[in-house]
Amino acid sequence: MPELNIIDTTNKLPFLSDAGLSPTFSVMAMDEYGTLQEKHIAGERPLTIYVNKKEIVTLMTLGTQPEALVLGYLRNQGFISKIDEIKSVQVDWETESAAIVTHSSYDWDDKLSQRTVTSGCGQGTVFGNMMEQLDDISIQKFNAKQSTLYALLANISKENEVYKRAGGVHGCALCENDEQLIFVEDVGRHNAVDTISGLMWLNNISGIDKTFYTTGRLTSEMVIKVAQMNISVLLSRSGITQMGLSIAQQLEITLIARAKGKHFLIFNGADNITLDVPPPLNRSHKTSANIKQS
Amino acid sequence: MPELNIIDTTNKLPFLSDAGLSPTFSVMAMDEYGTLQEKHIAGERPLTIYVNKKEIVTLMTLGTQPEALVLGYLRNQGFISKIDEIKSVQVDWETESAAIVTHSSYDWDDKLSQRTVTSGCGQGTVFGNMMEQLDDISIQKFNAKQSTLYALLANISKENEVYKRAGGVHGCALCENDEQLIFVEDVGRHNAVDTISGLMWLNNISGIDKTFYTTGRLTSEMVIKVAQMNISVLLSRSGITQMGLSIAQQLEITLIARAKGKHFLIFNGADNITLDVPPPLNRSHKTSANIKQS
Repeated sequence: MPELNIIDTTNKLPFLSDAGLSPTFSVMAMDEYGTLQEKHIAGERPLTIYVNKKEIVTLMTLGTQPEALVLGYLRNQGFISKIDEIKSVQVDWETESAAIVTHSSYDWDDKLSQRTVTSGCGQGTVFGNMMEQLDDISIQKFNAKQSTLYALLANISKENEVYKRAGGVHGCALCENDEQLIFVEDVGRHNAVDTISGLMWLNNISGIDKTFYTTGRLTSEMVIKVAQMNISVLLSRSGITQMGLSIAQQLEITLIARAKGKHFLIFNGADNITLDVPPPLNRSHKTSANIKQS
Repeated sequence: MPELNIIDTTNKLPFLSDAGLSPTFSVMAMDEYGTLQEKHIAGERPLTIYVNKKEIVTLMTLGTQPEALVLGYLRNQGFISKIDEIKSVQVDWETESAAIVTHSSYDWDDKLSQRTVTSGCGQGTVFGNMMEQLDDISIQKFNAKQSTLYALLANISKENEVYKRAGGVHGCALCENDEQLIFVEDVGRHNAVDTISGLMWLNNISGIDKTFYTTGRLTSEMVIKVAQMNISVLLSRSGITQMGLSIAQQLEITLIARAKGKHFLIFNGADNITLDVPPPLNRSHKTSANIKQS
């Protein structure tokens, strides 16, 4: 681990390195005609998180906003509950590591070791912890209009830059009314949502009255992570799983899947959506749209 | 943990419970017209793996073939190297657990505790272990024909039952020439590939001369897992990441992405593919197909 230069302790925001990577690489690929073509592919790098020199986890990431990713990961996992407890986040791609230093090392060492031992580690996340935290979550509902959702979907379709260039990534957006406040792409949905959480922490943005959009599927972990950010409306271009739905029902989160163009399916919280602009009836289009994307 | 009934110790295959779940659930959703529709969604259940009563990991799974999933997970993580070391796998959905008993408990207890402590846990997998194992992998190359790949893609498009019904899952297939030997869907790509590995173990199927197909992206973990199964041709309907490519180059795995209909892009090992039936030239179709799916 390199020595850290602690600069910012006055305004209570942590010192952050600025180690964002370029998201795509250019490579050659041969197509079905035997022609070599230049193609862009998404980057993917391991990043091992150390809190006060203790190894926590290795994330595979696109690497564009590693400091925010690390902050959001620690927040969403429930390891650290206030950003002013963190002194610095220093990402170093040569050692593929993110070194986090907290102000009160004594407390966190104890907390982290406990977490790691009891939870076991899941394919996808440290799952045990997150389920326990569900009981503490209370989310403030808000009503959204169909017209606002349509305007939002139209705005979002302009983004997805890495996806359009290289594929291989998922996009997530934090939205207010029909505007995107933050848009993040990463090789894993979980990293994109964690990075948004980190950016919300750094910029003191609350999840109340916000809508969360993702290109990815709404599995249990995605719903839990968004709930932890106090966001009550969750919009996905893809499908949902039974456990994602079940957690949304438990926490009264509005869950909308298959959202693309003028189409969507509200799986939970239909009362919170005002259908003010139903599109012209076209049943054949509607039915085929339901089974397109995962 | 329930008491186990050990039946099969003579032919060296473990005793397995038969706890497969139905993959989809029927729920009601409201569409953009305010109409309630019956929709099918993919199941998702937590399954905590215990080896000799020691907790290893919690996987989120569709749950259709949990015993094979557990076996493949233990195999692909390098925890257990021979199937005849396993006495039984008993899955119980009431306790959401899979209890594995090994013949020589003494050895495995030691091995597992070592692994768990040193590796840390990754979002997606226990990553540390898997990278270390790369050096031991030597994969036997084989040559595949374009015509065989096309016939295989046509056969595969008939499958994906859960995906077609409910979305929210990824499919993986183990293939020999143009035939699928095994097709598995799960909420995570990693689970589908682990389940195939478990089924290969149980049925004594080698990966040599096989092709692996997945609907999902070829990230580092997917390439590593397929390499561990000694499979040298990897075919994906989706994209690849830079690290997936880099590992394929290191291990000389043939990596083909964006494979759909008559289109594909060979990112590594083009020498191993004989282009015997190039499709009629249609450049506009070709270009647009490159950016469709992630």
